[in-house]
Amino acid sequence: MEPNKNFSNTQSDIVLSTRIRLARNLADYPFPVKLPPEGRRDVVEKVSNGLKDIPGLDLKLIDMGSLSDYEAVSLAERHLISPEFAGIRDGRALLLSKDGNISIMLCEEDHIRIQVIYPALVLEEAYGEASRIDDIFDEKLKIAFDERIGYLTQCPTNLGTGMRASVLLHLPALSKCGQISRLANTVSKLGLTIRGSYGEGTGVNGDIYQLSNQITLGISEKAALNNLKSITMQLATQERAAREDLIKKIEVTDKIHRSLGILQNARTINTDELMELLSWVRLGAVAGEINIEPDILTKLFVDLQPATINASIGMAADMNKRDIIRADMVRKALS
Amino acid sequence: MEPNKNFSNTQSDIVLSTRIRLARNLADYPFPVKLPPEGRRDVVEKVSNGLKDIPGLDLKLIDMGSLSDYEAVSLAERHLISPEFAGIRDGRALLLSKDGNISIMLCEEDHIRIQVIYPALVLEEAYGEASRIDDIFDEKLKIAFDERIGYLTQCPTNLGTGMRASVLLHLPALSKCGQISRLANTVSKLGLTIRGSYGEGTGVNGDIYQLSNQITLGISEKAALNNLKSITMQLATQERAAREDLIKKIEVTDKIHRSLGILQNARTINTDELMELLSWVRLGAVAGEINIEPDILTKLFVDLQPATINASIGMAADMNKRDIIRADMVRKALS
Repeated sequence: MEPNKNFSNTQSDIVLSTRIRLARNLADYPFPVKLPPEGRRDVVEKVSNGLKDIPGLDLKLIDMGSLSDYEAVSLAERHLISPEFAGIRDGRALLLSKDGNISIMLCEEDHIRIQVIYPALVLEEAYGEASRIDDIFDEKLKIAFDERIGYLTQCPTNLGTGMRASVLLHLPALSKCGQISRLANTVSKLGLTIRGSYGEGTGVNGDIYQLSNQITLGISEKAALNNLKSITMQLATQERAAREDLIKKIEVTDKIHRSLGILQNARTINTDELMELLSWVRLGAVAGEINIEPDILTKLFVDLQPATINASIGMAADMNKRDIIRADMVRKALS
Repeated sequence: MEPNKNFSNTQSDIVLSTRIRLARNLADYPFPVKLPPEGRRDVVEKVSNGLKDIPGLDLKLIDMGSLSDYEAVSLAERHLISPEFAGIRDGRALLLSKDGNISIMLCEEDHIRIQVIYPALVLEEAYGEASRIDDIFDEKLKIAFDERIGYLTQCPTNLGTGMRASVLLHLPALSKCGQISRLANTVSKLGLTIRGSYGEGTGVNGDIYQLSNQITLGISEKAALNNLKSITMQLATQERAAREDLIKKIEVTDKIHRSLGILQNARTINTDELMELLSWVRLGAVAGEINIEPDILTKLFVDLQPATINASIGMAADMNKRDIIRADMVRKALS
């Protein structure tokens, strides 16, 4: 496998996206869990007003209570909100940029959860953008902060920086070689955690994993980011070596091409199978075995999730109908 | 499913080929099993000389003993000889026409086994051609014949007409609906037998079945042919009805298109999987779900058999290598 130089800067052969999340709370209000709906609406109004008319920051305020189930779940599938935020929606709101790079959950576990997502590995840039928004809040709102501890959050695991930095990794080779549990072990000793692509308690699909920092107390943002970056680079190196071995095998190139053939021809396909086949095809695309832009595949991982399909057709289609639409969409995208 | 009018005459949507086999023996020689190699060579010479310089009959004499294993087995895979004939080859010979429509096994179970194969359902035509050759033998050689019994053969099940007429049927719908054993039962009560595509004792592959007459004594050739034809037409009607039901199901069109996608993309494929996928694709092609000439698929059923692949590359490739060549060949044929 010839390493493609395009991937070398941002590790985009392996790192699908970078996400920075900062948890913040208003000093003068109880945490959301203790707030009645009116109190939450108060917080939403206060915070969203704080971001009005900021140059270069065009955020749309979405009342979560106004969304249908599938619209809300689709936001979670697209990693724009947490799965929990899609569940109970009354009194909650989302500030969302047009490109989806910035999303701010209001009255999730904390009053404010600033989130910046960028494609590939760009931790500094994503953190820079999140900080810029954080600075605006610091200036306009009274944020709960303790000189000794740092930012105050509802859950003690977020105290301090309130920062969760994570990267979404496509690790087909390490995954198929059964290396992930060993790596998860090593990584946890280094203050990081590796899990399913939708975070805590979610399963793994399409060999996509989320690697994130665990420690927020007694460590600077910069140190946490450096740590995450360095482990990500090491995992990327291991994944590339494993891919190089895999791709030499006829069973693997066969599997890659068959997967593409099925995706280009299926008339019905469920999410699990889609994710598995996309994973093989993306491995082939990145390895140069298949001539498809990996970004197209990365996008399909998200666009063909159940609620996102419903959102794209504007109705809650049943599972069978959705499997047919999914097959139609993937055929069009890959033909 | 719109019945395609092209199939209506020869049932070529279902009947892959028609075969007539006439068993004959020379009166003045013991049956081959009792003949030493020199005796068999005598018979071969006598019979092949009988067919020399006949207008419109250009047969090549192949000494079976001179063939490699895979060359001999390939002849059986292409239905030109019986599998047994490919086994013990010393003193045996084959007279073969260029187009493969006529093949005459010398010193198989009987001294002479005339075989005519044509595509689709053309029993009268195939029988006509076999008879023409038979008449030449009758004229030039002393054939073992008894006024009361008919033609004498080594195995009593061939006594009388010595004729085995068979059709090769592609029955994917009846097969996938689990109807074959019921049909086999009915058919056997009508003096016919249905079995795997390579005859007695062979397995079923690609949903291809051989339907043949069982009775040769006390029945005229014409009656036997009429009987076979009429049962074939009935099976074809049942298969078409079953196809019409099947093809309405999304799981079936999905399976058809996926099978094509795999065949067009696989890098390695074994015979069993190939046959199964080809069967789905041929069903789709005949039903108009896929735009591929069914004859191309019918040909692949035979051309991609193990020994025939070896024969086409001129060497005994091992199984893994052959699976790769098979995948290359099917990709080329279907792309």
